[in-house]
Amino acid sequence: MGKVATAEVVRFMTDCLRAVGTSEKAAVQQADLLIQADRLGHPSHGLNRLELYVNDIVKGACQPNNEPKVLKESASTAWVDANNVLGATASHFGMDLAIKKARDTGVGWVTVKGSNHNGMAGYWAKKAADKGFIGMAFTNTSPLLAPTRSKQPALGTNPISVVAPGSQGESFYLDMATTAVAVGKIEMQMRKGEPIPSGWAQGPDGKETTDSQIAFDTSCLMPLGGGEQTSGYKGFGLSAMVDLFCGISSGSNYGHHVRAWSHSGDGGPANLGHCFVAVDPQRFAPGFRDRLTDSIQHWRQLEPTNPSLPVLAPGDKEKLNARIADANGTVSYVKQQIESSAALAKRLNVKPMNVIQGQ
Amino acid sequence: MGKVATAEVVRFMTDCLRAVGTSEKAAVQQADLLIQADRLGHPSHGLNRLELYVNDIVKGACQPNNEPKVLKESASTAWVDANNVLGATASHFGMDLAIKKARDTGVGWVTVKGSNHNGMAGYWAKKAADKGFIGMAFTNTSPLLAPTRSKQPALGTNPISVVAPGSQGESFYLDMATTAVAVGKIEMQMRKGEPIPSGWAQGPDGKETTDSQIAFDTSCLMPLGGGEQTSGYKGFGLSAMVDLFCGISSGSNYGHHVRAWSHSGDGGPANLGHCFVAVDPQRFAPGFRDRLTDSIQHWRQLEPTNPSLPVLAPGDKEKLNARIADANGTVSYVKQQIESSAALAKRLNVKPMNVIQGQ
Repeated sequence: MGKVATAEVVRFMTDCLRAVGTSEKAAVQQADLLIQADRLGHPSHGLNRLELYVNDIVKGACQPNNEPKVLKESASTAWVDANNVLGATASHFGMDLAIKKARDTGVGWVTVKGSNHNGMAGYWAKKAADKGFIGMAFTNTSPLLAPTRSKQPALGTNPISVVAPGSQGESFYLDMATTAVAVGKIEMQMRKGEPIPSGWAQGPDGKETTDSQIAFDTSCLMPLGGGEQTSGYKGFGLSAMVDLFCGISSGSNYGHHVRAWSHSGDGGPANLGHCFVAVDPQRFAPGFRDRLTDSIQHWRQLEPTNPSLPVLAPGDKEKLNARIADANGTVSYVKQQIESSAALAKRLNVKPMNVIQGQ
Repeated sequence: MGKVATAEVVRFMTDCLRAVGTSEKAAVQQADLLIQADRLGHPSHGLNRLELYVNDIVKGACQPNNEPKVLKESASTAWVDANNVLGATASHFGMDLAIKKARDTGVGWVTVKGSNHNGMAGYWAKKAADKGFIGMAFTNTSPLLAPTRSKQPALGTNPISVVAPGSQGESFYLDMATTAVAVGKIEMQMRKGEPIPSGWAQGPDGKETTDSQIAFDTSCLMPLGGGEQTSGYKGFGLSAMVDLFCGISSGSNYGHHVRAWSHSGDGGPANLGHCFVAVDPQRFAPGFRDRLTDSIQHWRQLEPTNPSLPVLAPGDKEKLNARIADANGTVSYVKQQIESSAALAKRLNVKPMNVIQGQ
């Protein structure tokens, strides 16, 4: 592990994106999206993803200095062509529009086509929640999820995020892939040489596997719920719902038409679809924030099955990670990440990250 | 098992509701909601629920002849007080408003308080889809779901439904509880004297149980995803999201404040919250219906892991059940249901259902 000052990681990511020709505004926005994932304890969506974005730009699969444009608009909706910009640029554009419409009519519902990977979905839902709205963000992704009974994948990990503001500084923060787990969790078990639980992944024969190496090599994830007996078809249905909101509504690539997952920038433009929703809770019953906080605080004080594992409200883990990161002013990375970032610095002729400790 | 002509079941349910003073329109609407669940193969939400509604009316916990009213309205939103009418009356009122607003602005988002159990969520989402919209319906319910790590329940089975129209007569039909399974599935295993899979339910000690009798007696369901290792906290998060849209937004009872599940009408008005959403897909990319149908047909032709179990699109099971019921003009009920309906007929002095076969 190595620790790096949070501001230094942002400097490094911004420099890398600038080095491949990204405008300052777009680079800063993308770097903020990534550092927030590291800060919240989701390193798979942080610095770890930088090289993917850089490669997409270098190969011309992403055009970071284009401008998104509105293709069609009504009082509460907008259809946007992201014009192949970075996911952060596309998503700020989309969510800003959704918020504006929610201010006017109570709801904004925006679909975006022609976009790229837009990081942690919760970042976008939180953007609306920070302004007092119920924020929602959805995106489709490369096929990794096997529909129930299927031998092969046909949908992405298609995340759902819903964030809403409570009183007393509380908030509801849900950000979840519609697969049981992300590939990263399987990778961790493989590195430790340990098995995975049933219901995470399938082997090449289409059957559930508990062998982490086979699961990692196959990269065929099971939907939330696992197998058919434990209602995995519900997770499949949720993943399909996300694609309905994103790819199918926006006319981007969808489902099995999305390019395979790649770090190399090969396969041409991703043409992903996103969906951003903002709803104004003030249009309904007064006291929304207090009721939300009452619920959150009720969940936390429920008697736990195991006294050493208290019940958590959605987002509690992330908030704790963020508090620790902020208190230290640093984020931590595994050795492999530190090394690959050093190699990237060299490749792009950018000042390497100053690692405080370890390596 | 006993078979009953579909029209005869509707006649019987309408007569029972009329016998306890429900207006004809409200009785007919509620009976249609119930028969559709039986037709689609979800008997837990059909005739099986009639007595619950009757008891709520008899005890005065539900006032079927009241009128719902709009408390607050904007271009795309409405906040409705159902005034303690039957769930079907409240939900037609709510979804009609959502559709009207979606026609005007692209989106309608309606929350309803002061309502009663509104049956199968898919019925309401389909109402919007039948008119060309993406329809969504959510409702909170009595606490049965234990948040991850909790010994006791704090949320309902809180269903999510999303229905959307495709081309070539296809449609996307998702209607799912956010628990792994409904209590009815545990009851079926108990009656057969068979165990239940891990991840369905907890025992009184808060631990997962595979004993169907203990699970049924405890009635403490696990969220979709099961235990923490298989991401059950995502199902918990989804159930909480549904309550955020329903109880917390509308100011109805919410979460642990909802009355315990009861068939007797005791415990006073349920004061449940619903949320109805309609989104006009024509406000986004042309070709929505074709892309949806392409996805649905792609899923069905995926190579299955077990050649005798073809991959199903969300809603395929329900559509097959409906086709069979319609071809026969009948629905089937277990002996216990036939008997309890006969007893209800006697109690209410209503002409009993004419059972074609069996008993």
